[in-house]
Amino acid sequence: MIILSRAEIETLVDFDAGLHAVGQAYIAASQGKATIPPVGYIAFPQADGDCHIKYGHIAGDPIFVVKIASGFYRNPSIGLSTSSGVMLALSATTGQLEAILLDEGFLTDLRTGLGGAIATRALCRPDARRVAIIGSGIQAGIQIRCLHRAMKDRSLTFTLWARSDAKVAVVADALAKEGIAVETTGDLESLCRSADIIITTTPAREPLILSDWIRSGTHITAIGADAPGKQELETQLVVRADRRISDRLEQSLAHGEFSTAFEAGLIASESCRELGEVLDGTAKGRQNEHEITVADLTGIAAQDIAITRAILDAHRQA
Amino acid sequence: MIILSRAEIETLVDFDAGLHAVGQAYIAASQGKATIPPVGYIAFPQADGDCHIKYGHIAGDPIFVVKIASGFYRNPSIGLSTSSGVMLALSATTGQLEAILLDEGFLTDLRTGLGGAIATRALCRPDARRVAIIGSGIQAGIQIRCLHRAMKDRSLTFTLWARSDAKVAVVADALAKEGIAVETTGDLESLCRSADIIITTTPAREPLILSDWIRSGTHITAIGADAPGKQELETQLVVRADRRISDRLEQSLAHGEFSTAFEAGLIASESCRELGEVLDGTAKGRQNEHEITVADLTGIAAQDIAITRAILDAHRQA
Repeated sequence: MIILSRAEIETLVDFDAGLHAVGQAYIAASQGKATIPPVGYIAFPQADGDCHIKYGHIAGDPIFVVKIASGFYRNPSIGLSTSSGVMLALSATTGQLEAILLDEGFLTDLRTGLGGAIATRALCRPDARRVAIIGSGIQAGIQIRCLHRAMKDRSLTFTLWARSDAKVAVVADALAKEGIAVETTGDLESLCRSADIIITTTPAREPLILSDWIRSGTHITAIGADAPGKQELETQLVVRADRRISDRLEQSLAHGEFSTAFEAGLIASESCRELGEVLDGTAKGRQNEHEITVADLTGIAAQDIAITRAILDAHRQA
Repeated sequence: MIILSRAEIETLVDFDAGLHAVGQAYIAASQGKATIPPVGYIAFPQADGDCHIKYGHIAGDPIFVVKIASGFYRNPSIGLSTSSGVMLALSATTGQLEAILLDEGFLTDLRTGLGGAIATRALCRPDARRVAIIGSGIQAGIQIRCLHRAMKDRSLTFTLWARSDAKVAVVADALAKEGIAVETTGDLESLCRSADIIITTTPAREPLILSDWIRSGTHITAIGADAPGKQELETQLVVRADRRISDRLEQSLAHGEFSTAFEAGLIASESCRELGEVLDGTAKGRQNEHEITVADLTGIAAQDIAITRAILDAHRQA
C-alpha cells in the first residue's frame, strides 16, 4: 500500500497532467459516467468545525476515491490551518485500500485551482488579458497560479482586491517571489469595471460584485459559494449573464451562485449548463465577444478522483 | 500521526477494555449522545462489490471516527478476503487526522463479536449454558470467542450448525486449537429446541429459525440482517418474543430482523427497545426464566468509535 506525505505529493504534481485529468473528470461527470453519492457531513458546533466526506467513482477507473476534508475555524488561533484532509484510493475491483494521500487539503486546493483555470480558459474572450482576483484566502493565490500556468500563451495581468489590505499584500508578495506580478487595488468597483476576467474566491454571504459594474464581454468564475447562504455575485448579475455554467448543476441550483436566482424563479434550470458539456461540445460556451459568462464552481468529487489518480500515476512512473 | 497495521492492532486488543468500551457506546447512542449521520454507500455492480462509510462522534470524545468498509464478493476466487477496511481517527477539536488503523476489517469483526457478547450476556437466563451458533462465516467463530471470554464464569457449551459440513469443521477445528471446544451438528431443529442461547450469523434471505423450535426461556442474538432483504428468524418468532432489543431501533425496523414484523403491522415500534437502554436500566431486559428474548444487532458507528478509541488508548499506554 502506498502512503504519501504532503511533501511527497507536492513533488509529484504535474500541472498539465492535472489540468487534463480534471477537465476529463468534468466531462465524465456531465456524461453521467461518474457515480457520486451525496456528500457525507458531520458538524462539531462546540469546536466551530465540520467534516465533509466526498467519494465517488468514474466508470472504468481502476480506483475509487474517498476524501475526508475538515474545516475547524478556530485552528488559526492555535497555529493550525483551518482545513485539513486526506484522500484514500481503493480498488474498484477488489475494494482493497491502495493508497493514502496525506495531503492535508493540498489536493483539494489544487483541484479547485485547476477547475477554476479550466472554466476560465474555456469561457473568457480570446483577447481577455486583465484578470481581477477577489479575495485573499488560499484560493486567491492558487487561482492566479493555475490561470497563469494554464494560459501562459496569453499575457495576462492580475489585480487583487480584498477587504484586508494587509492580507492582499501577503498574497501579492508570495506570488512576486514566484515570479508572478500581481497589482493590488483598494477600489473593487473600478477593478470590476475594467476587468476581462473576474475570479471571486471569498466566503461572502452578501453579494460583493454588482451587476452594474460588469461590462459586456466579461467572464466571471465564482469559487466561493460552496455551502448554503454563501453568495458572491448580485442576483441580477446571474440573471443578466448570457451563459451560466456550473460544475454540477444540482449543486449550483441548490446552494451555489445560481440558487438565489433559481429559487426566486428568475432563471430556469434549462438556462444553466455544465462545464463538462461545454468542454465536450454538448453545450454552447461563449458565442461572441459581447456575452457575459458566469461559471459557478461548487466542487465535485470527480475532481478529487482525477487529481488523486494523477498523483498516483506520477508516483508509479517515478 | 499514528499508522497501525493489522498485526500491530491485534497485539493492542484488550478484550475487557473493548467489551466495556462497546457497552458504553451502546449506552451513549441510546442516550442521544452519539452523532451518527446516515451511512454512506457506493456500489460497484460490475465487480459485485460495495463500500460503506460509517462515521460519527460520541459527545465529549476527543476523536471522531470514519470507517471505510468494502465488501467485494468475488475476492475469494483470487485469494483475497471479501471484506476489507480502514478506520480513521480525527480530532474532534481541530479536525486533524490523528490515526489510521489499517485493520483490514478486523476491528469491525471484533466490535461485532463484542456487541453480540454484550447483548447475549445482558439478555440470556442466568443459568443459560447451551449455546447454538448458526453459520460458518467469520462471525460464527468470533461470536463464540467473544462469548467464551465475556461469560467465562459460566460453563458454556457451544454447538455449531451451518449448511456446509466442511465449513463447520473448519470453524470448529480453529476454535479447538485455541482451546475452545465446539460440538457440531447436522440437525438444526434439534439444536434450536435444546439451546438456551441461539446466535445467528448467516446472510440468510429466508428465515432459517422457526418459531415452533424455540422453547420458552431462550435468548436469540441475530447478527446477520444488516441490509434490506436479509432475515434469519421467522417473523412469527419475532412477534412472539417477550423482549425485542435492538442496537439501533431505526435500523432494526427499517432493514433488520424486526422489519418484516413491523412493516406487516404485527409489532409496534414501542414494543422494541435499544440495547443501550437495557444496559443503563432505562428499559427492561429479561424479567424471568420463561421469557423469549431477541436481540437484533445491525451494527452501529458508535461501536466503531469505541473500538478505535480502545485501540488508540492501548497504543498510547504501550
